[in-house]
Amino acid sequence: MTTSHKVVAFDSAPGLSRYAALAAALRARVVAGEWPPGSALPAESLLATEHQVALGTMRRALELLVAQGLVERIHGRGTFVRQGIAGASMLRFFRFDSGSGEMPRSRILSRQRVAAPAAVARRLGLATGEMVLRLQRLRLLADQPCLLEELWLPLDVFAPLAEGSTAEWDDLLYPMFARRCGVHVHRAVDDIGFAVLTAAQAIPLGLAAGHPGVVVQRAAYDLGGRCVEWRTTRGDAHAFHYTVTIT
Amino acid sequence: MTTSHKVVAFDSAPGLSRYAALAAALRARVVAGEWPPGSALPAESLLATEHQVALGTMRRALELLVAQGLVERIHGRGTFVRQGIAGASMLRFFRFDSGSGEMPRSRILSRQRVAAPAAVARRLGLATGEMVLRLQRLRLLADQPCLLEELWLPLDVFAPLAEGSTAEWDDLLYPMFARRCGVHVHRAVDDIGFAVLTAAQAIPLGLAAGHPGVVVQRAAYDLGGRCVEWRTTRGDAHAFHYTVTIT
Repeated sequence: MTTSHKVVAFDSAPGLSRYAALAAALRARVVAGEWPPGSALPAESLLATEHQVALGTMRRALELLVAQGLVERIHGRGTFVRQGIAGASMLRFFRFDSGSGEMPRSRILSRQRVAAPAAVARRLGLATGEMVLRLQRLRLLADQPCLLEELWLPLDVFAPLAEGSTAEWDDLLYPMFARRCGVHVHRAVDDIGFAVLTAAQAIPLGLAAGHPGVVVQRAAYDLGGRCVEWRTTRGDAHAFHYTVTIT
Repeated sequence: MTTSHKVVAFDSAPGLSRYAALAAALRARVVAGEWPPGSALPAESLLATEHQVALGTMRRALELLVAQGLVERIHGRGTFVRQGIAGASMLRFFRFDSGSGEMPRSRILSRQRVAAPAAVARRLGLATGEMVLRLQRLRLLADQPCLLEELWLPLDVFAPLAEGSTAEWDDLLYPMFARRCGVHVHRAVDDIGFAVLTAAQAIPLGLAAGHPGVVVQRAAYDLGGRCVEWRTTRGDAHAFHYTVTIT
């Protein structure tokens, strides 16, 4: 008996090992929506047949995708496309006296369509002057302002957020990005530094100009590795607290 | 043919799963020095026989020790007791203009045998008043002071460091702890916060009293999970820089 299988070609780019090229081909299928976040990938043996590679090669490619955070293996159940990142709240870098145990709230202070400044365009991989959505957001704990954020989002994928009232927005952005724009944030890089707050940065936080501040700059990436968000978060340096364990 | 094997008993403490108790028994053998850092553990099958457990149970216990950072598996070679932690330098939290690419240097400013203050004793698991070694250390890059450290070490294991000239000390402490005191630091927890520097803290760093500072508090643990070092590191908040990636 002969079974007919789909065959999926993949190009081995120069300098890329065979299994890395295979991983890129599998990532492209995820990005194309063939396997949505949360869904299971087909069996390794079927994938190996489709891509016409040895089972060992397919396993190494899948291991690479696990290491890259695109998929996860659940013991005895298979390989799944990961849901977006969790535990990525900027609040994890701070410890505020107010509102321990309270659900943090969000308030959008402003929303503008603007031409991307050069620095933002470079981060988002856009040409200078391409349109972006600029948001100012305040995060609150127990009604006390604690973090001030400026977000830059490429308008081509975030157009749905440029319409309607921001009062209806969710307190958590990433689930809303997924639901309303189909953007799944899969990786974020947070760069933490220190800077004195200007009056414009301090006042919404209930602080005085010149107050010591912590600045977190985030680049967030979607399933395909595109930078889909560039964010600057500011908060009271005295509330900054972060723990790193090394083993 | 009958083979005679060593049998190693282990107690299953209440609330501890069988494999977790087994992991604790294996850890005790490492702590006792049966397998020194860098050495290979015996084959899983032999270990399973010695502890009279199924091979699957032994594998789960070893996986737990891998997750805890005590041992590591090297593909095709076996399971090894890990050498101490690497990449634990406090300098990873900072980015100084001076001395990029320079090897950081250390200068011991003071060394005292003192009775442990209550807060230090609690951290080190000692009774208040037990003797500890208190060190003040300056870290320098290109001869510029950049970090000021206060270290507290329990004297029972660090007695060799109370003797002789500190001028001969290594720039890196952990390899010296291992070589001179047999203490292998295997885990460290760094707690990062912000505080304004006092004159006594600022002046050795070439800064003025009231300058914004970043404070890192470290608890470091040996193979057996004992806290063997409590350290406070201070540096210029403007030089603080740390990147966290979430996937």
